[in-house]
Amino acid sequence: MRASSLFTTITAFMASQKPETVYPINGLGVTPAMGWNNWNAFACSVNEDLLISTAEKMAAFGLRDAGYEYIVLDDCWSLGRDSKGNLQHDPAKFPNGMKYVAEKIHSLGFRFGMYSDAGSYTCARYPGSLGYEKQDAITFASWDVDYLKYDNCHNQGLSGTPKITSERYRTMTDALRAAGRPILYAICNWGEDFPWKWGPTVANSWRMSGDIYDSFDRPDPRCPCSGDEYSCAYPGSHCSVMNILNKAASIIDTSLPGAFNDLDMLEVGNGGMDDEEYKSHFSFWAAVKSPLLMGNDVNVMDAKALSILNNPAIIAVSQDPLGVPAVRRWRYYVNDTNQYGQGEIQMWSGPLFGGDQLVILLNAGNSSRTMNATLADIFCVATGIAKEIQEDWDVYDLWANRMDDATAQSIIDGTSIMGAGTSVASFYYNATQVSYKEGLAANDPLLYGKLTGTVTAGGAIETEVPRHGVAMLRLRKRTTTSFKVQDV
Amino acid sequence: MRASSLFTTITAFMASQKPETVYPINGLGVTPAMGWNNWNAFACSVNEDLLISTAEKMAAFGLRDAGYEYIVLDDCWSLGRDSKGNLQHDPAKFPNGMKYVAEKIHSLGFRFGMYSDAGSYTCARYPGSLGYEKQDAITFASWDVDYLKYDNCHNQGLSGTPKITSERYRTMTDALRAAGRPILYAICNWGEDFPWKWGPTVANSWRMSGDIYDSFDRPDPRCPCSGDEYSCAYPGSHCSVMNILNKAASIIDTSLPGAFNDLDMLEVGNGGMDDEEYKSHFSFWAAVKSPLLMGNDVNVMDAKALSILNNPAIIAVSQDPLGVPAVRRWRYYVNDTNQYGQGEIQMWSGPLFGGDQLVILLNAGNSSRTMNATLADIFCVATGIAKEIQEDWDVYDLWANRMDDATAQSIIDGTSIMGAGTSVASFYYNATQVSYKEGLAANDPLLYGKLTGTVTAGGAIETEVPRHGVAMLRLRKRTTTSFKVQDV
Amino acid sequence: MRASSLFTTITAFMASQKPETVYPINGLGVTPAMGWNNWNAFACSVNEDLLISTAEKMAAFGLRDAGYEYIVLDDCWSLGRDSKGNLQHDPAKFPNGMKYVAEKIHSLGFRFGMYSDAGSYTCARYPGSLGYEKQDAITFASWDVDYLKYDNCHNQGLSGTPKITSERYRTMTDALRAAGRPILYAICNWGEDFPWKWGPTVANSWRMSGDIYDSFDRPDPRCPCSGDEYSCAYPGSHCSVMNILNKAASIIDTSLPGAFNDLDMLEVGNGGMDDEEYKSHFSFWAAVKSPLLMGNDVNVMDAKALSILNNPAIIAVSQDPLGVPAVRRWRYYVNDTNQYGQGEIQMWSGPLFGGDQLVILLNAGNSSRTMNATLADIFCVATGIAKEIQEDWDVYDLWANRMDDATAQSIIDGTSIMGAGTSVASFYYNATQVSYKEGLAANDPLLYGKLTGTVTAGGAIETEVPRHGVAMLRLRKRTTTSFKVQDV
Amino acid sequence: MRASSLFTTITAFMASQKPETVYPINGLGVTPAMGWNNWNAFACSVNEDLLISTAEKMAAFGLRDAGYEYIVLDDCWSLGRDSKGNLQHDPAKFPNGMKYVAEKIHSLGFRFGMYSDAGSYTCARYPGSLGYEKQDAITFASWDVDYLKYDNCHNQGLSGTPKITSERYRTMTDALRAAGRPILYAICNWGEDFPWKWGPTVANSWRMSGDIYDSFDRPDPRCPCSGDEYSCAYPGSHCSVMNILNKAASIIDTSLPGAFNDLDMLEVGNGGMDDEEYKSHFSFWAAVKSPLLMGNDVNVMDAKALSILNNPAIIAVSQDPLGVPAVRRWRYYVNDTNQYGQGEIQMWSGPLFGGDQLVILLNAGNSSRTMNATLADIFCVATGIAKEIQEDWDVYDLWANRMDDATAQSIIDGTSIMGAGTSVASFYYNATQVSYKEGLAANDPLLYGKLTGTVTAGGAIETEVPRHGVAMLRLRKRTTTSFKVQDV
Repeated sequence: MRASSLFTTITAFMASQKPETVYPINGLGVTPAMGWNNWNAFACSVNEDLLISTAEKMAAFGLRDAGYEYIVLDDCWSLGRDSKGNLQHDPAKFPNGMKYVAEKIHSLGFRFGMYSDAGSYTCARYPGSLGYEKQDAITFASWDVDYLKYDNCHNQGLSGTPKITSERYRTMTDALRAAGRPILYAICNWGEDFPWKWGPTVANSWRMSGDIYDSFDRPDPRCPCSGDEYSCAYPGSHCSVMNILNKAASIIDTSLPGAFNDLDMLEVGNGGMDDEEYKSHFSFWAAVKSPLLMGNDVNVMDAKALSILNNPAIIAVSQDPLGVPAVRRWRYYVNDTNQYGQGEIQMWSGPLFGGDQLVILLNAGNSSRTMNATLADIFCVATGIAKEIQEDWDVYDLWANRMDDATAQSIIDGTSIMGAGTSVASFYYNATQVSYKEGLAANDPLLYGKLTGTVTAGGAIETEVPRHGVAMLRLRKRTTTSFKVQDV
Repeated sequence: MRASSLFTTITAFMASQKPETVYPINGLGVTPAMGWNNWNAFACSVNEDLLISTAEKMAAFGLRDAGYEYIVLDDCWSLGRDSKGNLQHDPAKFPNGMKYVAEKIHSLGFRFGMYSDAGSYTCARYPGSLGYEKQDAITFASWDVDYLKYDNCHNQGLSGTPKITSERYRTMTDALRAAGRPILYAICNWGEDFPWKWGPTVANSWRMSGDIYDSFDRPDPRCPCSGDEYSCAYPGSHCSVMNILNKAASIIDTSLPGAFNDLDMLEVGNGGMDDEEYKSHFSFWAAVKSPLLMGNDVNVMDAKALSILNNPAIIAVSQDPLGVPAVRRWRYYVNDTNQYGQGEIQMWSGPLFGGDQLVILLNAGNSSRTMNATLADIFCVATGIAKEIQEDWDVYDLWANRMDDATAQSIIDGTSIMGAGTSVASFYYNATQVSYKEGLAANDPLLYGKLTGTVTAGGAIETEVPRHGVAMLRLRKRTTTSFKVQDV
Repeated sequence: MRASSLFTTITAFMASQKPETVYPINGLGVTPAMGWNNWNAFACSVNEDLLISTAEKMAAFGLRDAGYEYIVLDDCWSLGRDSKGNLQHDPAKFPNGMKYVAEKIHSLGFRFGMYSDAGSYTCARYPGSLGYEKQDAITFASWDVDYLKYDNCHNQGLSGTPKITSERYRTMTDALRAAGRPILYAICNWGEDFPWKWGPTVANSWRMSGDIYDSFDRPDPRCPCSGDEYSCAYPGSHCSVMNILNKAASIIDTSLPGAFNDLDMLEVGNGGMDDEEYKSHFSFWAAVKSPLLMGNDVNVMDAKALSILNNPAIIAVSQDPLGVPAVRRWRYYVNDTNQYGQGEIQMWSGPLFGGDQLVILLNAGNSSRTMNATLADIFCVATGIAKEIQEDWDVYDLWANRMDDATAQSIIDGTSIMGAGTSVASFYYNATQVSYKEGLAANDPLLYGKLTGTVTAGGAIETEVPRHGVAMLRLRKRTTTSFKVQDV
Repeated sequence: MRASSLFTTITAFMASQKPETVYPINGLGVTPAMGWNNWNAFACSVNEDLLISTAEKMAAFGLRDAGYEYIVLDDCWSLGRDSKGNLQHDPAKFPNGMKYVAEKIHSLGFRFGMYSDAGSYTCARYPGSLGYEKQDAITFASWDVDYLKYDNCHNQGLSGTPKITSERYRTMTDALRAAGRPILYAICNWGEDFPWKWGPTVANSWRMSGDIYDSFDRPDPRCPCSGDEYSCAYPGSHCSVMNILNKAASIIDTSLPGAFNDLDMLEVGNGGMDDEEYKSHFSFWAAVKSPLLMGNDVNVMDAKALSILNNPAIIAVSQDPLGVPAVRRWRYYVNDTNQYGQGEIQMWSGPLFGGDQLVILLNAGNSSRTMNATLADIFCVATGIAKEIQEDWDVYDLWANRMDDATAQSIIDGTSIMGAGTSVASFYYNATQVSYKEGLAANDPLLYGKLTGTVTAGGAIETEVPRHGVAMLRLRKRTTTSFKVQDV
């Protein structure tokens, strides 16, 4: 029997169990972590000002209130170790030290994340924490760090079986616990040695693929495993959104509240994809409960990137109290391929808070097409015929109330959400005041997009989906009579 | 040389050897275990009443007498450990404790099975037995447990080679032996690290695939390995009957009396397949000597489910004294595919008690078809030309005397086999009084279905097989002249 | 750099080095072992008389003189261990004990081989030697055993990496060495964990595939790896001759004098293949330097089986002093397939004593065909253009002087080679008096088949090859002018 | 995050870090090693005179000055160990001992490389260093060795996970460091157990495939993994240039300055490929920063081999200060296949010193064809749209100024570069006086081939590429107006 069969009983279970049982590691990250990490846009070009100014801008743009909580510094912050073996920050980059950065970030209402590596060097060949786990965990705790990204470079060959790899990462799990400060633990071993098998007892999240790059579906030889491979002995890098998503399809249901598969940081706003592609990227990362770490330069944020990243109806899916990732129900290759020979369509669905059901229709074909999904496929379950198929459902389009470009641009131009007009109220959700769980329970319309139709018992949804785009829909049980979308 | 080549000599061998040599672990489960497990129908919704009332109903319906012996409680029965580390039952679910349940079940003529996990948590994140093997084995023995299902979740990454995994499971083998009570040991590590290589010296049965779900052949991305893969590094879940059966084809002949490949619990009666599909499912699980654990809710048992599960001619194949699984002789893909693109036909055969030969013609195409099998294929053996091909055989259809719907319904409606009419005698076999071995030796017609024809030396069987159905035939050497089915 | 590139220098090297360097383990088995093993024909039905009478018959038929040296007893000879843990023979099968058998076999001019298993049980579940290596090696030595087949069943999960598996087998290597008697060590772990990587420092030969069965090319699901796989995590059994041969193609050049890949025991004479298929089977086993263990019942030997097994021109290839296996030069699938969908053609070649070159044209298509091979392909070498292509060669057909059926039958009918007529002299080679190396050096015509043509520089061989048959040719540099076979 | 994403920041990083951080092992081999190794041409036929006379000839031909620095002795130099376990040279081959050879080689301006094996025997079965690492490292240091090739034969099964294998090789890393002499450490484990994952903390280079052989693209069964496999459990030997190159595509970006993937020694000049094939071979080995070890017999060097190996514009790519390997941008199969069924085209590119960009168009089809590459593909980067696409570039053909045959022949005939005419100055670069880095910085025209055109912003390169040949181009940002090659 597998944990993946549990969602029908998990709600009741969570109510009856003590939290430390449900979230095995540390009680943190019960919903997927949200925040920002500098790597995708800045790589090694890090310094104090970048982190603080980014945090300031994210607060001003309303992204902190939307839920982006962690400001995460990636590699290249170090100057090595001192004579006692303590990690030293690079004073040229961080003249006031790391604790100062943490305090500034905390004062802005964020939490502070740092980076190390389960090897002798980090990926950029700064000192790694292998063999220094206890000492470094104490250092991070002393710096008031709230989050640790823990990479996999230069690991001295300590890989090859789940046992070898998990022991290396668990050493830091134990060290963080011993250090006494709550630190969310995000491991990054690129899916090597099946972290979805052992991740829940080791970390709050685990990367499940090679590094993302800013492409929707271009294959790159440096990402040698195809999206059809459930096991990848060499994850590589330069993996496209579709490559990672397809790899996730097989293992995504291993995610649990407090223990999530991480599909890597977001590329939204970095310029390598078009608007529909970025919407698809963000929709799926939310739907499958991946951490949502923004990866763009907020100083050059454009209106469309902002209105993707701040959509409360999508984020509410990510932060859904059930914590159950959507799963793929079907996939078909289509002849309508692009220059890379890629073309396919998919449907994913999964349960949401309140008995709702998420549905995503993905058109990864090369032109717009009409797509549909039956309730039978949407509610495909392990045992017997789902009773939900025999019910009527309202259909909410979660992208329908996306912030308009003018409003988003006015925020950017005004350098803060306060600089925008009154229209902001139609889009602005403050999760620091009312959690997504509370908002969902209160039927806050900001979290439900727009009612666009109804599907009756035994019927199907049908909608037009643009090239490389998605229809992201939320089905709610009908309480009043309404028109129907389509019968099949 | 391999054990798989041994069946020609195994009968004589078994007669001459001491049982502890033949059944290496504990002398239990010499034929595949039969019983009921709550997971497929009830998941975590377990309690004392469910187990006892199910046992009562199974007894009343004649299923106990048919051979279903173990009432197995799955995950979610625990409340954690006490201050001494002893496992505690959940008193809300089991107000009288587990030993009370065991006694009630014993008093109904069944044996009692429980569940734990070779990890730090069970799949539903209750305490696992990793590191507590000795203590928990003593606990189970003290509760009069007769069977242990031992799962694989949250195993702390202790996998990756047969050595790592088998040592983890063997720790419980030794603990159960030390605890002193005969406890059938059913391990459930989903085929990871090749349990068919080391299972016979560790357990009475081992799961060889990811979890079954109630579908005949729908592929699901959560079961990433195709049925053609003999080695699956990530077994997953939501594996269809056909997926599991095809995986079994390569390794099924590693089963030995007392040490069986487990294809997972039955889905018969859960509603996701049609009657022919359930018949195929049950037929193959019996033919390949998988344990037969009913997985349905006996309170809503329908007539057709009952008449599948209680067919003595099929169960006699499962409990055949030779304990030799049927093997696949041929497989062809056919163009007649269903909505999932699936379509194939197969023939399996294997030796049965008394020199008989089992033959199964499987039509996994999308419509009924005429199928045939030559004696040459049916008796394909490793060395030389089988002498059996040169003999004449009577053909018995093992499904021909299936209980009719009216009788089955009268049992259900009457809430017991006693409530049915006299017609019950035509279908009712009491293996608790006369074992299947004894019944076969006595040529009990209940165990032989119906004579439907004859095949002469060098000939072939030909029969119509419905969509997703089987012809399950028993060939017996002819002793009198008779008509022939077909010559080729 | 790899050992496989060494053949051009190996002759000189062998002359200059001490033997213990060249044959790392024990100096035994410098050429592939030859003999007889009971398993393929008799499985567990073993006893003293079978071994002794077989040895007597093999001597009488001239097979001992042809080189078949080891009479090997396989599984099922044991009665368990005594109170001191010493292995006990089964007195019902071996009333005079094993040492008596050894002495009888020695007195007939053969060597005696026994069987154990690197696990807790043998495949037939008699006691295995795992944990008893030293004790059992001493027992075997005390029984005057000359050869140990060491199997892989019930190995307690001690597999998964070359390290785990090789250590398990090396324990017996050391134990045999410590026991003090020269015992050829033939390990049988079915190619698991890449024995060709570590075999030369562990054993005299290692099985490289799942068990053979008596079929030329029928696929069986119990042999799940196709012939194209160079790495097989589950070798299985019921592997056809073509399946094993194709697996061997990738790794065969890891064989060295004294350390050979073992393609499993011969099926010649067991009835599942036709004469051409058996000839192909035997030809390749000889060409690639597999051990040649007869696997048939010599009491029912037919003329054609005898005349395959006793062909000195083929055996001289097996026992060639260079010990270099032939390698595959090309392979093509053909449309001319059989009922199993199999059809292909191949050409193999490799160096032989005296500057000769072996060429095998294999027609695994479904009907006879004309095949050819260019000198460029035959002498394809790693570096540059082979000078041999620019030379003229005489072509000898190694099957042309096969013993005729009448002569073979007269031997069988006369129950000894002495019972045949004077024609025997044309076919009979006594390697116990004149080794194959000496015979080759002396240009004994029995070892060279029949001169059938010549191929000139830059030319090609062309010949008709029957269905499932081979042309097995020996090229010798021309010393006189002659006609040519074909120019290309 | 992966090291592979670092090249945009690596230049600045290298300036700011201490060298021991950048080059983790020993500070040696910051650019790929160049030199000569005897194996490909001479195998075991080694002696003092071969090494010294080759060094003399390489110096005389100007190859030392071109950068070929290491004269590496391969296997077969040993006579075993003395009574103290010290390695002994073979006095028949090296009458004056190894230190004498080292001194002679040093006096000629070269460094001296030797060979051992991380196993109990070398591939030719001389003593290996497994278990003798410290002792042998001291021996090599005492012989003034500058380079160690460390092979993988007869490794006692110590493989199967990166942990097992890397530990075996790291033992020698530590031993060499302890021995106190700077010795470049080139490990040769054929890509087993993913050396690109752990190589940078173990060695200066690591072989990533099975052994090369002198063929452009002929498949051989002894090299069982196709070029599409990123993980090869049995690397084998007889791997063609295209096979190795295609394997490299997935993992090549793991190379770092001081830690390079090794595609095996060169076959240029050995006769198995034509001139275009050898040019392609050499171009790619340089472009991907493989070590460049000549593998031919310099005594029979022909003009074309010399003018490939001595081309300073190509070598400058190998020795580029950035040390960043080119990566494959696209690959297409073409119908224009050869006798082996091979046919494909590829484009690779990567950054070079000074903001330049390397482009290689490979035509592995069977006839000449026009090929093109867009700036968008050439500058494909991970994040967003590369700004380089919007710039104009001059295009330099790096093979255009290859030494003409007459000049090359005059060097060979004159037995030294001094024997050639004044035309030599047009081709001769002395890297021992002016490093490639200095020459590039000084815009030495010898390092830039020939300006053949310009490509404007958003445009593409188009050129004719011969069968099995390459166009190897260097793009430099335009500083003056010029004609354009082609717009797209």
